[in-house]
Amino acid sequence: MSSDAAINKAFDYLEQHKDRFRSELFELLKVPSISAQKDHGPDVRKAAEWVRDRFKAAGLKAELVETAGWPAVIAEGDQKAGRPTLLIYGHYDVQPEGDLSLWHTGPFVPVVKDGMMICRGAADDKGQMFCAMLAAEAWMKTAGALPLNLKFCIEGEEEVGSPNLAKLVKEHKQRLACDYVVIHDTAQFGEGVPAVTTATKGLIYKEVIFRGPKKDLHSGSFGGAVANPANELAKLIASFHDADGRVNIPGFYDRVKEMSPEEIKIMKGLPYDEKAFLADVGSPKTYGEKGYDALHRRWARPTLDVNGIYGGYMKEGSSTIIPSMAGAKVSMRLVPDQRAEEIERLFEETVRARVPGTVTAEIKSHASCGPYLADVQSPGMQASRKAVAMGFGKEPVLIREGGSLPILPMLKQVLGADSLMLGYCLPNCNAHSPNEFLHVRDFEAGMRSSAALLGLMSGAA
Amino acid sequence: MSSDAAINKAFDYLEQHKDRFRSELFELLKVPSISAQKDHGPDVRKAAEWVRDRFKAAGLKAELVETAGWPAVIAEGDQKAGRPTLLIYGHYDVQPEGDLSLWHTGPFVPVVKDGMMICRGAADDKGQMFCAMLAAEAWMKTAGALPLNLKFCIEGEEEVGSPNLAKLVKEHKQRLACDYVVIHDTAQFGEGVPAVTTATKGLIYKEVIFRGPKKDLHSGSFGGAVANPANELAKLIASFHDADGRVNIPGFYDRVKEMSPEEIKIMKGLPYDEKAFLADVGSPKTYGEKGYDALHRRWARPTLDVNGIYGGYMKEGSSTIIPSMAGAKVSMRLVPDQRAEEIERLFEETVRARVPGTVTAEIKSHASCGPYLADVQSPGMQASRKAVAMGFGKEPVLIREGGSLPILPMLKQVLGADSLMLGYCLPNCNAHSPNEFLHVRDFEAGMRSSAALLGLMSGAA
Repeated sequence: MSSDAAINKAFDYLEQHKDRFRSELFELLKVPSISAQKDHGPDVRKAAEWVRDRFKAAGLKAELVETAGWPAVIAEGDQKAGRPTLLIYGHYDVQPEGDLSLWHTGPFVPVVKDGMMICRGAADDKGQMFCAMLAAEAWMKTAGALPLNLKFCIEGEEEVGSPNLAKLVKEHKQRLACDYVVIHDTAQFGEGVPAVTTATKGLIYKEVIFRGPKKDLHSGSFGGAVANPANELAKLIASFHDADGRVNIPGFYDRVKEMSPEEIKIMKGLPYDEKAFLADVGSPKTYGEKGYDALHRRWARPTLDVNGIYGGYMKEGSSTIIPSMAGAKVSMRLVPDQRAEEIERLFEETVRARVPGTVTAEIKSHASCGPYLADVQSPGMQASRKAVAMGFGKEPVLIREGGSLPILPMLKQVLGADSLMLGYCLPNCNAHSPNEFLHVRDFEAGMRSSAALLGLMSGAA
Repeated sequence: MSSDAAINKAFDYLEQHKDRFRSELFELLKVPSISAQKDHGPDVRKAAEWVRDRFKAAGLKAELVETAGWPAVIAEGDQKAGRPTLLIYGHYDVQPEGDLSLWHTGPFVPVVKDGMMICRGAADDKGQMFCAMLAAEAWMKTAGALPLNLKFCIEGEEEVGSPNLAKLVKEHKQRLACDYVVIHDTAQFGEGVPAVTTATKGLIYKEVIFRGPKKDLHSGSFGGAVANPANELAKLIASFHDADGRVNIPGFYDRVKEMSPEEIKIMKGLPYDEKAFLADVGSPKTYGEKGYDALHRRWARPTLDVNGIYGGYMKEGSSTIIPSMAGAKVSMRLVPDQRAEEIERLFEETVRARVPGTVTAEIKSHASCGPYLADVQSPGMQASRKAVAMGFGKEPVLIREGGSLPILPMLKQVLGADSLMLGYCLPNCNAHSPNEFLHVRDFEAGMRSSAALLGLMSGAA
């Protein structure tokens, strides 16, 4: 049987059982597996057990692997030497429900409305991860076996920053060894525009605190005598960009790599409506580094943003003080081939060089991870593009993600494997907001894409 | 009897009764007349009644004049046409006690320790105001009459911003008409350096709010797409000063008047120890407008300070957002002859001109009052300097106050009278802090200064 014929048999199976699969997904969605909230502990474990049991029902070996936090589910099919190996990463935990008053229905009461499955976790990541689980079942039931070596690592702490994942991956390095990692925590480009994601940005998150007088001073009696930490901090922040909106940190752009001509061509052909974007976001204008349009900057140009700023009297009304201190949380998003440690060092050196002698500075570190860039020409990426084309019935575009996925550089480092990012939900799917959704049609297209990927990869790696 | 002989008789009276006066002051200090706290209402009224009754005991007419808030005490001696008229302004209300754990004794349990009377209100303003009341009594008891037309207006809402004072003064304009206003809400220059204050700064207090996206955005997905209100606000604040520390608002310095050569000469001769100042304040260095030293800037150069700044994620840890808004409370201290309305206009025009098109700006107003400058050569000022010299046994220096006293321009406008600022406490008397104090020796020197002023002014206005 040709690979395409086998894939089509899997597609038929997925089509025949799609209503059952949706009911099963609803079972999982009803479990409020909120990893951030201790009192949901029993729910988190219940979801882990549900996933483990569902893998077994599909014909895979599966077990809970305990960590210092919530367990991961590790599942695998029969492993045979000489075949390519895929590791599918996903997570069964979800974000808290947020503002209940904004949900049209209960956050853990899945419903279908206007073709959308609405529930916390529908997209991020239960619905998307389930597509890959069902793809495995379809191959088991139609071909009697998986076409390649397939492994799953479904963790329960993604929404709290995966604090125990790196340790788990290191401890199970041999067991999780693979040619490619597949991850579904990304999205399509928009309605009717399926996509494969090629890159994520890195993240450096710092906090700079300026201190002047040892306590707040009367701004009348002391104005003009000593430096004001809030004014000085504002000068520092202003110095972080030049007049062209470029980040003004010496060496910052040295390793920045342009997108490939193919990516740029695809990007310029995308149905991107800046007016609609601005209306949605609410800003009066776009803004950023000169010489690039907004989409280009979001995808492939590094940025620096104040995420929070504080100091002095911040309540209603007025208080006439010179604040004793002021602070700013400042983060940078990095693009290939910028290096996290290098940019951290450049940032700290630049800040130290710009601190005036009239205040003292403290720099705290909150996060540091590098960018990730897939090789668009790799067999895995070629197979991914074809798989999505078969699943969605439409050639996918190549896109980049402005957000950061620290697990990608981590998995690359520990397992030496590249990641393939196939996201099936829409970018406005309310992943961390009320009324999270996944279209039924995209759920079904996602199952097919995942099933196709297994077939296409079987001869690809 | 010569004026000096009469003053000396008053001095003798004050000396003979000083222990009784201190006991009486302690009675008043024990009343927690905190105008900011509603549950202290009965105490505020009790203090007003105590002051009224004490005026009567001294031989003056006195009554409570009700306002929309707490009453003022208006007292007066016999008024005769052709004599100069003084209006003494004071207040019987006090600041809240603040952090109780920092008080060495109860905030309303007056004690004498190391020669200091320690209690909330000891300096601000019960102790200083009482000096003037006792001066009147000394004249009544020793000369049988006051040497000039004397009026008192002792309000009960100074510590909450005198919300009803302007209305009261306007309504009692004839009754309060005077040649000079005397106010004691200032201080000496330092230990053993008595002073007469010649000027206060004006105050413009604004709040600038920049708004960008309608809600906080993911700094990864949206970084590089739209302007960050916190970064843009930092640029605006940085633009408020030039490289020389001068306020960079066109026209800001146009009306700034230098100090008189006499004032500058006195200033340069003062025992001002910058090292000790920095050790006390805790800043690593002084800072301000180039070309002036710190004391000069505090006294006579206009300033601009951020009093508070806020926006985005301000709690522990990190959140990767582009804030939807950021705000800063910005105040300016004005010097003679800057005009409050003009500087307000220049500030708003400058901000409007500098708002980038990528955000919208709102400007709120919190306070606006002009600076005040006394005529150093006026008969009132000459008499004040001589009175303090007699009371303290030492020639006073002329100093300026960096803080603002909105009542001075108000009284000038409504009554047409100049103000004389004779402060008897020390500048570090903890006026709004725990362990407020007034030295016993300064209390006594203050009584004498006030008594001398009445005698000296009788032939002066």
